[in-house]
Formats: sequence, C-alpha cells, structure tokens
Amino acid sequence: MSIITLTTDFGTKDYYVGVLKGVILGINPAARLVDLVHDLPPQGVLQAAFALFNAFNYFSEGTIHLAVVDPGVGSDRAILAVRADGHYFISPDNGLLSFILDNAKKYEIRKAENPALFLPYISHTFQGRDIMAPTAAHLSLGFEFEKVGPKIENPVILTDMKPDIQPDGTIGRVIYVDRFGNLITNIPNRSVQGGKMVISAGTVDIWKLSSSYDSVRPGEYLAVQGSSGFLEIAKNMGSAENPPGLTLGTVVRIKPLP
Amino acid sequence: MSIITLTTDFGTKDYYVGVLKGVILGINPAARLVDLVHDLPPQGVLQAAFALFNAFNYFSEGTIHLAVVDPGVGSDRAILAVRADGHYFISPDNGLLSFILDNAKKYEIRKAENPALFLPYISHTFQGRDIMAPTAAHLSLGFEFEKVGPKIENPVILTDMKPDIQPDGTIGRVIYVDRFGNLITNIPNRSVQGGKMVISAGTVDIWKLSSSYDSVRPGEYLAVQGSSGFLEIAKNMGSAENPPGLTLGTVVRIKPLP
Amino acid sequence: MSIITLTTDFGTKDYYVGVLKGVILGINPAARLVDLVHDLPPQGVLQAAFALFNAFNYFSEGTIHLAVVDPGVGSDRAILAVRADGHYFISPDNGLLSFILDNAKKYEIRKAENPALFLPYISHTFQGRDIMAPTAAHLSLGFEFEKVGPKIENPVILTDMKPDIQPDGTIGRVIYVDRFGNLITNIPNRSVQGGKMVISAGTVDIWKLSSSYDSVRPGEYLAVQGSSGFLEIAKNMGSAENPPGLTLGTVVRIKPLP
Repeated sequence: MSIITLTTDFGTKDYYVGVLKGVILGINPAARLVDLVHDLPPQGVLQAAFALFNAFNYFSEGTIHLAVVDPGVGSDRAILAVRADGHYFISPDNGLLSFILDNAKKYEIRKAENPALFLPYISHTFQGRDIMAPTAAHLSLGFEFEKVGPKIENPVILTDMKPDIQPDGTIGRVIYVDRFGNLITNIPNRSVQGGKMVISAGTVDIWKLSSSYDSVRPGEYLAVQGSSGFLEIAKNMGSAENPPGLTLGTVVRIKPLP
Repeated sequence: MSIITLTTDFGTKDYYVGVLKGVILGINPAARLVDLVHDLPPQGVLQAAFALFNAFNYFSEGTIHLAVVDPGVGSDRAILAVRADGHYFISPDNGLLSFILDNAKKYEIRKAENPALFLPYISHTFQGRDIMAPTAAHLSLGFEFEKVGPKIENPVILTDMKPDIQPDGTIGRVIYVDRFGNLITNIPNRSVQGGKMVISAGTVDIWKLSSSYDSVRPGEYLAVQGSSGFLEIAKNMGSAENPPGLTLGTVVRIKPLP
Repeated sequence: MSIITLTTDFGTKDYYVGVLKGVILGINPAARLVDLVHDLPPQGVLQAAFALFNAFNYFSEGTIHLAVVDPGVGSDRAILAVRADGHYFISPDNGLLSFILDNAKKYEIRKAENPALFLPYISHTFQGRDIMAPTAAHLSLGFEFEKVGPKIENPVILTDMKPDIQPDGTIGRVIYVDRFGNLITNIPNRSVQGGKMVISAGTVDIWKLSSSYDSVRPGEYLAVQGSSGFLEIAKNMGSAENPPGLTLGTVVRIKPLP
C-alpha cells in the first residue's frame, strides 16, 4: 500500500488538487493520498521547501512526496525525481528540495522525462497534472526509479538557506511564518544552546531562551527552541508577526553576552 | 473499492464536511473519500459547476461525485442522481451539473427520493447530510441506480454558460477566478486557434495568444489556452484580478484582425 | 480498519496537519485518516468543542477522535484519553470534550501518560505530534485503553455552555459562527417548540420560528431550528454576522408572548 503525499500552492478554493488526486487514482487506485499542505503562499518556493523538509521525515521510508510549487511551469526548467534516504520526491527543479538534499545522507537525482509515464496531452500551464502526478503514480505502482529519466548532478538550490554562525554571534532570518504568527528562523536549535545572550529581531530584543510559550506573560515576545528543530520567535497568546517589522525575511541576530 | 468525491461550498472552517464523511463511512466503511474542493464561494453554483466539470473526468468510471452547493436547501427543489458517461453524480437540481450534462455523450437523470436511503431524520437545512451523502454511500455499496427514484427530463440548466461565437468575433465572459488570479473564460481553446486577433477584457487589450505564463514580462497581462480547455486571461508572476474591472463575470471579446 | 478523525486549529496553510498524519501512518499504516476540521479559530477551544460534539456521532462506534486545540501546550495541563459511548477521544484537558462528556450516557477518562506510546523526543511546543497522535495511533492498533494511563475524575469543563431556561424566557448565546454567517446558539431546538415568541439577538428581533432559510425574503433575518440540534439565527441569502452586534458570544433571548 503506497503512500503519496501532496504539497502544493494550489490552495483549497480551486479544483486543482482534486484533479491531481483523480490522475493519481486513475493510474493507481490503491494509492493512499495524504494532503500535506496546499495553502502555501502562491509561488512560495522557500516556504514549500521548508514545509516539506519538516514533514516528510515523519512518514515511512518508501513514501512518495509530490511537491508542486511551480512558478516556472511551461518554461524549460526540469522536473526532478529524487530518491533521498529511502523517500521519493517529484517536483520542479526550482529549489523546492533544497533543505532535503542539503540534509540527506544519500540521494540520487534524475530528470523526470519518461513520456510513457505522462498523460497523453501535456499542457504548458499544469504540468503537475500532466507530468508530475502521473510519474508519482507510476512510481507507486513499482515502476523502476532508474527508468524515470537520466541522472543529473546540479539541481537548483536556494541561497540564503543557512545562517551565518560565528563565535561572536549568529545572523539568520525568518524563513517561515505559521498560522499562529510564530516566526521560524533558519537558525538550528542546536546552535543556540546555553549561556547568556540577546536575541534581536526587528525592534524586539529577547534576553533568554524560553522552554514553552507560556513561560512569559501573555502578549510578551519569547524565543523558543521550536518543534521543527529551529529557533522560533513567538508571542504568548498571540501572533508575533506584528507592527515592529517582524515577518518573513526579517533578520534575527543572536549575540552571546559575557 | 468505491471512490466518492466531495465538492461543496462548506469551506474548511466548519465541521460540515466532516459530518458528510462520517455519514458516508457509517454506511460504507470501505468507501474512499476524495475531497475535490470545499472552499468554493458560498452558494456559488456556477463556480461549483465549472470546478466539478473540470475535475470529474480525471477520475475512473464508476466514481460517485457528491456535489452540494445548495442555496435552495429546504425549498422544494429536487435532488438529482445522474449517471453520465459512466460516472455518478448526486446534487441539488440547481444547475450544478450544467456543464457535465451539456457535454456528456449519454446520461440518465433521476430524482433522488428513495427514503430507504436517507438518514432517519431529515432536516430542512442540511440535506447534504440527511439525503445526498447517504444516497451516495448506498450507491457506492452497489445499490441499483434505477431504484434511487423516477426518471426526470428537465433539470435546471444554467444560462450564459456559452459564449457567442461568430465569424467576426467571439463574446464570452469570465466564469471562474482561481487562487492565482487567473481568469478562466467560457471560451473554448479550440475556438481561438491561429491568426491575428485582439482579446479585450475590461480595460485590457491583449494582442496575441501566449503559450505559457512566462512568455510575457513579469507584471504583463497575457491570454493563454488554459489547462482546463478554456481561454484564460492571466498576468505573469501576479494576479490578473486587479483594478481595471477584471473579475468574475467580466465580458471578454475576441476580434480577429486582418 | 480503524478510523481516526482529526480536529485541530492548525489551519490549512502550514505543514502541521501533514506531520500528524505522518506520525499516525508511521505507527499504523492501515489507519484511515479523516479530516474533521482544521481551520478552527486559533486557540478556539469552545468552537472546537462544539464542532467535535456535532460531528463525532455520525461516525461509527470504535472511531478514534484526535482533537488538538492546545493553547496550554508545554504547561502542566494533562492530556486526556476518553472512551464515551463507544467512541475514543484524545485531547488536551482544556474543556475541548465538554459537550461530549456532558451528553454521554457513559464515559471513562484517563490521563494519557504512557511514554511507551510517545515519540522518542517530546517537545514543549508540539505535543499533538509527540504525544497525542502516537497515542491515538497505538489505540487504533488495538492497544488497551486501560493501559494508556490512570483514571481521572475531574476534567476541565467549559463554563457558560448551557442557556438559562426559565418558564418566562430563555437566555442563551451564540457559541459558533459558521462560514455562511449562521449564528448557532447554545439553545437546544427542543426547548423552543411552539407558541408565540420574540427572539432577540443584538438589535434584531425575530417574531417567529422559520422552517428553512428561504421562508423569509432575501436579506431578512430568521430563526431556525438548526441541523445541529440548536437554534440558529440566520439571514436568507446572506451572512447574519453583520454590523448590529451579532457575532460569537452575542446574547440571545427568547421571550414567550401571550
């Protein structure tokens, strides 16, 4: 029983996700479809990359992850089929797999270009439906990964993924803002352990690490080692994405204190 | 293994879709439920009709499509059970199946009024739950279509579905706006092939057909033969649903040029 | 084949629901996951409690309901495992099960604290993932309910759940507002049967019960015995949640007339 997860920026107000599901179930009626997330910001490749990276690993090995955030649809960008640490990924070659590739112990990247796996008619504007979904469906039926297309070596990788970590301080930025207004940074939890420090983001200075949201008073900002493995800026009982310039992209500085 | 797709305007913030699923699984625990779309505009029968028409055909024959956008719930509008080209549909008789019936090679329409298939208590305000979902669930168990209720001949059909196509020009309108701000018209791709033309929508004039979104500069409008089979007005890297009067209902004119 | 329903305030724009699903399917690949609702107001325990109460009963006995609206995550609030009328529930001990416990014929409440069921690493900020989802998944595999943790007797119960019903009138309030702008009150349908009355909510007075939305003119307010078993204030062809102070929490008075 094959699981195929779906990560898109198609939203929930249109029928496009339904179409992907129809295409997959038409090819493999036994596939188990799991919506990972669809209301990503339109064309938000960075957020999609971060979301998929944080979620995929909770699934079992052998899971196929179809990820379609595709501002370059119809251009000559490639479509990737990747096997990484036992998981499979199908996505456009636009950086969407950056975090996964950067953290995988072992991976193999192929260009998905085997037309035997595609729908009969290929549009210029919905290749998630015409190429990516059917390729994922065929993989879930046991189609050989090696026959999806030739190996490639240089996929697109996002820049600015990693913070600058120096002994005298760390400079990172907010790379994901969730529904609750928690600002997730690209600074790994493990790089901010212990000692006195000041954490600055926009006009906010935070003078300690907290262990949970309610360890400060309601309405106060806090910094917490987030559940995704990265430092978060949050506000107890509220959204931290508020007037003083705290939002996606905001620079976050950690300075150790004597 | 029966697939039942769900198309509603129930949104994602309430428990109503969950209730439909409980009712169906209570009757047929082996049914495979597929969310087609739920965040349609409240009471947006036209958009629902267009969404279902564009998605259903990617599913296999034998699929049951439950579609509930039902502004007339509790009035005396009928509930339909339709078999069209091997697919089954349950919906209120309000035009929701207009595109499907208009394009089907073969169909049979029945009034869903067999109380043996209903929940024991029928409310006036949630017949998707009380009548439509259980009828769909019983069909998925193999209940005979002919016993759902008597044949009827004149279902409600939406007006203004079709463009006016003349040798000296075509007049259609925008019948669906998607999350990305693409304006999908009711003008079939096949009626706008080749030759010089001007495509006018609101205050925007477009002088050629493009083959993909990025074939114009970022921020520019374009017209493209859409993946759903209909002409779309779009904007590269942005939403076309912007100030100059481009939105649902906007008239779109195509005039051939010498 | 075990069904696990999911009720959260995680929304649809993040990957958190996807993570819950991965955790559950990693433990029980045969579990059937049903999204009940995820776009509840952030930290809206009352609305979650009402939504779950109105939906759970349409599922078969034996269904496991995972409900995570958890403003106190990381504090010392308990996590509950409840068996009520043949259904199972996993949720934080914050009142989320109030309506269910108040209406159950029979129930047993345990504190979910068996670490053998948890993920290896427990965060302070995402215990839905680390504790609740894996506990639900193990229950779906047949793990004995009694071994989840010790019995407890005094779960948190929400106040103001019930209306004040007197012979000379009833005072309740709006406890749920749905996508359509229907205002659902905490006044049971059965307590407003028959006779002349005036129903007052904010600045609106309604002089009769209607049987369906279209029994008044478009744009007019009405009161209807709602499909969830509670009195609703609605507006035909529109949202009743409009300027005159009608919204979540609004007091609703029913006064019988001579």
